[in-house]
Amino acid sequence: MSTDTPHDAREQLIELAAEFYDQFADGDVPEMSIPTRTKSNIEYDEDSQVWVYGDRTSTRSANSVRGARKLLKAIYTIDFLADQLGEDRSSTLRELYYLSESWDNEEAQFNDQDESNQLVEDLEIVSSVTREDFHMRPEESGATLMGPLELREQTRRGERVIHCQEDVGEGGYQIPNNPDTIEFLDNDADFVLAVETGGMRDRLVENGFDEEYNVIIVHLKGQPARATRRITKRLHDELDLPVTVFTDGDPWSYRIYGSVAYGSIKSAHLSEYLATPEAQFIGIQPTDIVEYDLPTDPLSDSDVNALENELEDPRFQTDYWTEQIELQLEIGKKAEQQALASRGLDFVTDTYLPERLAAMDVL
Amino acid sequence: MSTDTPHDAREQLIELAAEFYDQFADGDVPEMSIPTRTKSNIEYDEDSQVWVYGDRTSTRSANSVRGARKLLKAIYTIDFLADQLGEDRSSTLRELYYLSESWDNEEAQFNDQDESNQLVEDLEIVSSVTREDFHMRPEESGATLMGPLELREQTRRGERVIHCQEDVGEGGYQIPNNPDTIEFLDNDADFVLAVETGGMRDRLVENGFDEEYNVIIVHLKGQPARATRRITKRLHDELDLPVTVFTDGDPWSYRIYGSVAYGSIKSAHLSEYLATPEAQFIGIQPTDIVEYDLPTDPLSDSDVNALENELEDPRFQTDYWTEQIELQLEIGKKAEQQALASRGLDFVTDTYLPERLAAMDVL
Repeated sequence: MSTDTPHDAREQLIELAAEFYDQFADGDVPEMSIPTRTKSNIEYDEDSQVWVYGDRTSTRSANSVRGARKLLKAIYTIDFLADQLGEDRSSTLRELYYLSESWDNEEAQFNDQDESNQLVEDLEIVSSVTREDFHMRPEESGATLMGPLELREQTRRGERVIHCQEDVGEGGYQIPNNPDTIEFLDNDADFVLAVETGGMRDRLVENGFDEEYNVIIVHLKGQPARATRRITKRLHDELDLPVTVFTDGDPWSYRIYGSVAYGSIKSAHLSEYLATPEAQFIGIQPTDIVEYDLPTDPLSDSDVNALENELEDPRFQTDYWTEQIELQLEIGKKAEQQALASRGLDFVTDTYLPERLAAMDVL
Repeated sequence: MSTDTPHDAREQLIELAAEFYDQFADGDVPEMSIPTRTKSNIEYDEDSQVWVYGDRTSTRSANSVRGARKLLKAIYTIDFLADQLGEDRSSTLRELYYLSESWDNEEAQFNDQDESNQLVEDLEIVSSVTREDFHMRPEESGATLMGPLELREQTRRGERVIHCQEDVGEGGYQIPNNPDTIEFLDNDADFVLAVETGGMRDRLVENGFDEEYNVIIVHLKGQPARATRRITKRLHDELDLPVTVFTDGDPWSYRIYGSVAYGSIKSAHLSEYLATPEAQFIGIQPTDIVEYDLPTDPLSDSDVNALENELEDPRFQTDYWTEQIELQLEIGKKAEQQALASRGLDFVTDTYLPERLAAMDVL
């Protein structure tokens, strides 16, 4: 799926435009066929263990005014993206939306940002080029990394070689919008720990957990951005490091783990690029709530609903998850990862994580 | 207001506890008096140009069970904070809440996190020590800085000297939770530009605006965290740099500017520590919407309401703001900073900002 240079991505886009041209030249009504992007057309692929699109496709054809307008917008967007790649520049999804106001054909301008976002995702799927390789940036990313890893980032201002403990402040290394500009140079890491909350990330760094256990701490910041999931996958695939995901103990956090491990419905076309099916869950377990008598909150109706959905979710169809989720529904409680502080500020790094990691054979 | 070492902060806290002790010893009912923290007791101080508390105070006295319980919680919290400072450690507000579950006196345990957050703010006010100097961290901060500035950050792992262009990736330098651990070493900066959105921050960095104009770009990330406001103030005060605030053109963004420049009601006790009254607004102006024919959204009812409140707000009682806000109510429109992309991706750095900066005498 991934292409290596702006040149390659540009070629793929131009090929797409050439297809429309050929359809015109042959006297056919131009059309573009893409997988139907509804929940009913998304399948869990047992082999690759990630979400993928099913066989159903939708066709955008110029045989209606609405369809023709969609194709016109696609052509203008391809033209913009090809120029952008030719100049080795980049832009945000929101800038694309506003920029369309300057296009000479009013019919090509986007009505709202949902429309331009959707089109960029369509182009990702049809061209097999990722948004990052189109040089389209998200609005915000902002997650960080801290650990025994030296990397080289290719910036517009030249290369930067950064050691993610020795060359950064306590805030850590800021993951760029497109982590494929990073090359891993050297590391002394034994595994990756992806952490849901900033408070827990800071706790692990303050306690020197990354130094003592040779771990690369990735801050997920809640539901992780694409850049965060991408770099986590690369750390696993390229450095052969086990990945563990440390979250709160509630159904929304299990989904955060799920999106790291198995991909999300929204980005099912990118599962191979973003998902790390080997990632292991090291978050707060319902059994921990019972065993450690953690401070809890009661499950809300929407929590219960989400847990019941997860029981049906193919990603959670294992004995482990069935047991944990059923236990959680039974006790009716959830707990945050920082609830471990009720046993002291060092409990998480001295006891909880080392015990879990040993039981998971990561240590 | 600011104390310099963990030792000083610890002394202040212990003095507070000693007061309770003396009250007991004298046979008085212990009490703690703090400024009333309601909107009606917050005043705009014309001299310092920031929000401050008025003269009304509330007393927490042990002459009721409720009051006694509050003081008991304060004592336990002071004990925890003094220990934390003695060991030069830190913790999050959420950890404090959970940690109270381990305290031996159940009456001292917090019922919810609002209660512990509120108590820490009370202690800030009474002791004149900031939360940062108590070594209490927020849950998330995560803003970044990019520009011609070399700094030294004192981390728990030793000192780090970082140039905020040459030693960082495209993501920039991650501002730590307590920016008072930073010492500014050297800079080649002419001014500071604090930017509301990540998309615009990335645009300025991609276009090399920080290099071309010797500007330190601070990412506000919407309503800025305390750490972000603090470092902005320090850049102004210590390096004598003009500060400009670049936001969207809507009432909520004017409030973002207001919180950088004049402080917020919630943290009125910290205005001297956090606010930069000399900060100038360089965000999208209603006159820009008209002049540049920017893409807009209509004002919602809550936008109109917020603008009307701002007309009454002492922070916005200037001819400039009255004119702009009245114009905005008249045209009924708002625009985002990225809407400048409708004039091309370089318009903001080639034309808009240089013209505004020249008109403001910053360039």
